Amino acid sequence: MKNSIGRFVPDWVDGQRLKPYAGLTAGPEVHRRVETSLRSFPRGTPKLLGSIREGLDAACVRDGSTISFHHHLRNGDAVANAVLKEAAEMGLRDLTVAASSIFPVHAPWVELIEAGVVRKIYTAYAAGPVADAVVRGKLPSPITMHSHGGRARLVESGALRIDAAFVAAPTADGAGNLNGVQGPSACGTLGYAETDVGHAATVIAITDNLVPYPACPISISQDYVDYVVAVPSIGNRSQIVSGTTRPTDEPIGLEIAATAAKVIDAVGLLDENFGFQTGAGGISLAVASCLRETMLRRGVTGSFAAGGITGYLVDMLEQGLFRSLLDVQCFDLRAVDSFRDNPRHQAMSASMYANPWNKGAVVNQLSAMILGAAEVDLDFNVNVTTASDGRIIGGSGGHSDTAAGAKLAIVTTRLRAGNVPKIVERVRTITTPGETVDVVVTEAGVAVNPLRGDVKERLVCAGIKVVPIEALYDDAHRGLEKRPASPTATGGVVGIVEYRDGTVLDVIERICE
Amino acid sequence: MKNSIGRFVPDWVDGQRLKPYAGLTAGPEVHRRVETSLRSFPRGTPKLLGSIREGLDAACVRDGSTISFHHHLRNGDAVANAVLKEAAEMGLRDLTVAASSIFPVHAPWVELIEAGVVRKIYTAYAAGPVADAVVRGKLPSPITMHSHGGRARLVESGALRIDAAFVAAPTADGAGNLNGVQGPSACGTLGYAETDVGHAATVIAITDNLVPYPACPISISQDYVDYVVAVPSIGNRSQIVSGTTRPTDEPIGLEIAATAAKVIDAVGLLDENFGFQTGAGGISLAVASCLRETMLRRGVTGSFAAGGITGYLVDMLEQGLFRSLLDVQCFDLRAVDSFRDNPRHQAMSASMYANPWNKGAVVNQLSAMILGAAEVDLDFNVNVTTASDGRIIGGSGGHSDTAAGAKLAIVTTRLRAGNVPKIVERVRTITTPGETVDVVVTEAGVAVNPLRGDVKERLVCAGIKVVPIEALYDDAHRGLEKRPASPTATGGVVGIVEYRDGTVLDVIERICE
Repeated sequence: MKNSIGRFVPDWVDGQRLKPYAGLTAGPEVHRRVETSLRSFPRGTPKLLGSIREGLDAACVRDGSTISFHHHLRNGDAVANAVLKEAAEMGLRDLTVAASSIFPVHAPWVELIEAGVVRKIYTAYAAGPVADAVVRGKLPSPITMHSHGGRARLVESGALRIDAAFVAAPTADGAGNLNGVQGPSACGTLGYAETDVGHAATVIAITDNLVPYPACPISISQDYVDYVVAVPSIGNRSQIVSGTTRPTDEPIGLEIAATAAKVIDAVGLLDENFGFQTGAGGISLAVASCLRETMLRRGVTGSFAAGGITGYLVDMLEQGLFRSLLDVQCFDLRAVDSFRDNPRHQAMSASMYANPWNKGAVVNQLSAMILGAAEVDLDFNVNVTTASDGRIIGGSGGHSDTAAGAKLAIVTTRLRAGNVPKIVERVRTITTPGETVDVVVTEAGVAVNPLRGDVKERLVCAGIKVVPIEALYDDAHRGLEKRPASPTATGGVVGIVEYRDGTVLDVIERICE
Repeated sequence: MKNSIGRFVPDWVDGQRLKPYAGLTAGPEVHRRVETSLRSFPRGTPKLLGSIREGLDAACVRDGSTISFHHHLRNGDAVANAVLKEAAEMGLRDLTVAASSIFPVHAPWVELIEAGVVRKIYTAYAAGPVADAVVRGKLPSPITMHSHGGRARLVESGALRIDAAFVAAPTADGAGNLNGVQGPSACGTLGYAETDVGHAATVIAITDNLVPYPACPISISQDYVDYVVAVPSIGNRSQIVSGTTRPTDEPIGLEIAATAAKVIDAVGLLDENFGFQTGAGGISLAVASCLRETMLRRGVTGSFAAGGITGYLVDMLEQGLFRSLLDVQCFDLRAVDSFRDNPRHQAMSASMYANPWNKGAVVNQLSAMILGAAEVDLDFNVNVTTASDGRIIGGSGGHSDTAAGAKLAIVTTRLRAGNVPKIVERVRTITTPGETVDVVVTEAGVAVNPLRGDVKERLVCAGIKVVPIEALYDDAHRGLEKRPASPTATGGVVGIVEYRDGTVLDVIERICE
């Protein structure tokens, strides 16, 4: 069947019935936070185990179990690899791995996938060898690619039951209190892990900094943690740096950023209620830089910046441009220090950040969100999941969550990357549905989603060059030869792209070697 | 039937089957955190309501519903009274009220009980007119008196389903983020409310300090709060002061305190792992004062002090005698300031504090707990629930939780209050079972529970006067006329005293006017 945005969605995949995307939810709905079974630990019950293997045993992980990881150490994470290696050595098979994101550092999983240790993956983002293996059809069951908020929904609603959650804990005490701000692997907030620990059947903290009780400041408390395992190292925190950490200084990028900042201002969002989120790329930070100038000039203090937090946003907090930062994950070490030292820099759980099924997530408070794009199409759909050759190069992360939540969701993109147009007729994979994307800012003008006549009017009044998205498409393709249609139907579904509410936006197809 | 400590427990009370207390649990057990149904709030759904009445309507509170309150404003709380008054005006009947504690300020409930608005009460502590009305049989269904940890268990396990939780929020924003450290009614941590909000069907914050988003530092986050109501005042925070706030200067009290401190030292607990809790009474604080001297002299820094936190414990933190404070509720305004300003002064939820059915509560980490007593009996059972005339004068609070958790649970008491002996053959009401009470310290010597031969040996070695509890009984009664047996079986059960695991320790009987 086709979903409401024209994509084919199979009825069933690997025994799981799929529900096609049918547009945005209009009003409040009743949902549930699922029941969790847990072991009570009377006084004196030891929680310290001698090894990861003892942890897998204590959690009764067996063939077919679901284990989870979080990605605060990003490309420096050593915990997921160590756990899966141990699982393989134990002879476990057919595991489902729920990893909030997957990075190149997770390359050793490829061998485990081929060996049958891992059967299924849930993730919000995948880049590197694991992603490549998936799209080549090595995983027996299609990967489910959700958003960060979708993951919180999956876990809290019980649609994804975690048998054992492994928490990479920069600091832990023997009773299971954890924090992310002390120790050699301090990575800041633990927002994604916070959601897992509330619902996993067993929670195992892996730490390289075991401290005397209590591990203040406590981020995850002892009543949620079953076991603690001390290891020599949980990873390399220098690898948490995401993006460039610095605004672009390249002229076209700067021009796009300046326009995006003008768009935000023209819509009237730059006031004391301003809630802002942006990524860590060069253009994204350049938008922040332009906004900073305007806010400083006008003496505006906005409400908050959210998301993965960079040092650049920390600077803006310290300059009085925001009252607070809401941080689900630190994107660099300056953010880690700020979170540790500044009470206005606060942690949030994945659910508080973006779960569409709780009582109101932080993304719903955003005034403006700066989104990246691999491709945008004439319906404003955005792809950040696959490249034009079909490889998986990322995934939603918070992309579709923030687009849905923000008053103004702004895609900033050049018309082309090299000779490849980024404004296309139809994106290869829909990561974020066009009805949640408000404007597309390029070096050739700004396209406004026809659903947002109000926005268009304000931009025109402000003298911003507004053009139809079709004009951007023409500009992007001008002088290029007609590209061959991108390959389709290459032999089966290897991935499901879930919207944050669990309906299916699109599928990812296998590409042949 | 009789329970394992000899008290009669009816099979059924008001349609509820009772399970008699059967001793302490030995090993890990499997329990559940119950499923919670909730309404998801898409972007833009307003949470601000115009009145408490709108809150009751929005939560669909109806005849027979269960509503909850927390007691961080203690005898200064205005929220529970306002909500119940409104409920009465709406004509609601047969409500169950789950109030974490009840104080004299809640006197207006008596009229509502008589009018049939309130049918049943759950609480950990009751003193004042409501307690008096209950024991005179005015409540149609017996009051359930649990411990603070027992309440967390009741709520998290689903044994007590809350339809609407009202949170007295010293600060709130319009999206439902709450904190207790700002505003005219700042009362500090919100530990009891934290547990309620995770499981109530609807959560309504009542605030007298509505601030722009976000209400940093956030204690309870927006994903747990349905509605926010602004009112002129949520109470009088000067009334949160609990106990005397100052060590006693009365000689017998000082002598008892000095002995208790010696007992802790003699057992070898005064080291870097020292975890300590004490109440806010004069003798309790005098124990802290004696420990302070010893710790300062020896240069010992203990691990933590926990519980309701007083300024006295804040001083000890600031003097470097503890590494941290774990605070479920501030007992005075100095504690409120400290919690706001000192990152080593941390909040804990009621569940983290004392729930026997989670993965290990803070009470399990206590080295020593100083307990008060209205009566102690020859089996070391302690009563802090009823007076010798049968009136309800308090309840467990954290008494039975900390006694069960601490390595050394110490009752400090004089032999008599006036002419009334406090060491009795059989306490009127068992609040805390004797098997969890290790020593009783009086001005006439220290009685050690026969279960703790190890403790007795150490005290004797340290030259502390150890006597059988029977000797203390004799001393307490010497020269007094034989008291008439306290009245029993006066016409029915008006209260159930639950142990922290939900089994029944005792019942409270009606007393006639």
